[in-house]
Amino acid sequence: MAEIKYEIMETIAVLSQSPKGWTKELNIISWNGREPKYDLRDWAPNKEKMGKGITLTKEELIALKTLLAEKEF
Amino acid sequence: MAEIKYEIMETIAVLSQSPKGWTKELNIISWNGREPKYDLRDWAPNKEKMGKGITLTKEELIALKTLLAEKEF
Repeated sequence: MAEIKYEIMETIAVLSQSPKGWTKELNIISWNGREPKYDLRDWAPNKEKMGKGITLTKEELIALKTLLAEKEF
Repeated sequence: MAEIKYEIMETIAVLSQSPKGWTKELNIISWNGREPKYDLRDWAPNKEKMGKGITLTKEELIALKTLLAEKEF
């Protein structure tokens, strides 16, 4: 598989840390030099590996923010 | 790959829909009969295929809600 290039532009939130040190983070990431997107993903310590995740547009993140704000968990 | 069994317990939010009808959704899903988790994922129309996504614990979702609420996008 071709190497994936990415640049973390901003870390917005670290949501959790596992016993092995993996963190679940919301970052703003530019993938392969493209326009930065919001990215919710698991990361190994020191960003040595990336886990599964999902990218979100600004509109999707705002929709998520609004819907979460309306709901009790 | 073994078949993945899942049950969507609740759809909390549909964040977006692509031109091809894929939706990005926040659901509560039980994977393989295990304890339900929050799940942010892309889905094909009629849930015929699932795309990439990430599961979140209740604590992670509450952390996300809190951090999003504090920030302007």
